[in-house]
Amino acid sequence: MRVGVVGTGTVGQAIGGRLVELGHEVVLGSRDSANPRAVDWAAGRGDRARAGTFADAAEHGEIVVNATAGVASLAALEAAGAGNLAGKVLVDVANPLDFSRGFPPTLSVSNTDSLGEQIQRAFPAARVVKALNTMNANVMVHPAAVPGDHDVFMAGDDAEAKRTVAGLLGEFGWPAESIVDVGGIAGARGLEAYILFWVTLMGAFGTPAFNVKAVRA
Amino acid sequence: MRVGVVGTGTVGQAIGGRLVELGHEVVLGSRDSANPRAVDWAAGRGDRARAGTFADAAEHGEIVVNATAGVASLAALEAAGAGNLAGKVLVDVANPLDFSRGFPPTLSVSNTDSLGEQIQRAFPAARVVKALNTMNANVMVHPAAVPGDHDVFMAGDDAEAKRTVAGLLGEFGWPAESIVDVGGIAGARGLEAYILFWVTLMGAFGTPAFNVKAVRA
Repeated sequence: MRVGVVGTGTVGQAIGGRLVELGHEVVLGSRDSANPRAVDWAAGRGDRARAGTFADAAEHGEIVVNATAGVASLAALEAAGAGNLAGKVLVDVANPLDFSRGFPPTLSVSNTDSLGEQIQRAFPAARVVKALNTMNANVMVHPAAVPGDHDVFMAGDDAEAKRTVAGLLGEFGWPAESIVDVGGIAGARGLEAYILFWVTLMGAFGTPAFNVKAVRA
Repeated sequence: MRVGVVGTGTVGQAIGGRLVELGHEVVLGSRDSANPRAVDWAAGRGDRARAGTFADAAEHGEIVVNATAGVASLAALEAAGAGNLAGKVLVDVANPLDFSRGFPPTLSVSNTDSLGEQIQRAFPAARVVKALNTMNANVMVHPAAVPGDHDVFMAGDDAEAKRTVAGLLGEFGWPAESIVDVGGIAGARGLEAYILFWVTLMGAFGTPAFNVKAVRA
């Protein structure tokens, strides 16, 4: 499958790298196609990995992954181009974390709204699925890095788009029973609020190598 | 032990009832000592259960539990009296949920502050421990209602106060390894943000009978 990854940070590189490893064709997009991080990432990964602009990535992808910093996501997706996102599954992995006050970070949008909802509103023709934002990049693409059962959550208005994302998550190694569909894109509010809990736990545990399992009665 | 429970809702009644069952002497406090909910709760529970005012409950308790609705907590604790809280372990179970916009609720304080921190600032002589706010009332006091391993989180600045709370949680049935100390009271921010995630999951699962387990690598 052709996947465009918007964002060249740790998350974009981890997801892009894993997708290439799984046989997908990936364009890792940044503001500047000569971004050394993206160029370095593509080098040595063979034909299936390429660096480009945000728009190159979005145009290339049948699926587009938003892996930018949440505070920059709307601008990056605007640069990617609404036309390049129309009709496509847009996996929103970002958290709107604001580190301008230092640590712990706050959220630049929260409580009465969420980044996932903002993206869906800004790009109504995209099929936004919030997913994978509740964990560390390595755990996202290598769930077995954390032993035992633990969950990945997704929210989105388009059921078929969520099935597509669940398929990709399965390729990453997520068992079907660990993929929890929390409903429509408004659920992004809860999934993003969770990151403040995650940051608290990371501080307590001293490592990002953890995840949660929702245990039901 | 003498425990004062401030708040007569589902959470206050569940915690108060469980404490009485465990042999503790409980005053369930409300704004009005004739509150039928508190009087009904006390009736038939024997000598160890009594209804009273917020101040009666706080004065009675060696430990005080804030089980009021979060949006009303500061006023209720003010009525309970700073002097009655001074030096005591104050277990803050409340979530600052605002249902004025309907469902899903929002938080009346979040992101850059938390109710737990507000309470600690307003009552600096109290030893505030945020705990148990991340689950349904029944799960709080009967953790076995959800099978298998799952966790309870606590945050507070006073290590001895947290040991006291951990002891009570143990009496409720929480195994020591399931009691996760996330650090100082600023951790209440993460624990309260979590409730928006909890509300999202409750909507998806159609039941509040669940909890999470933090799984570490």
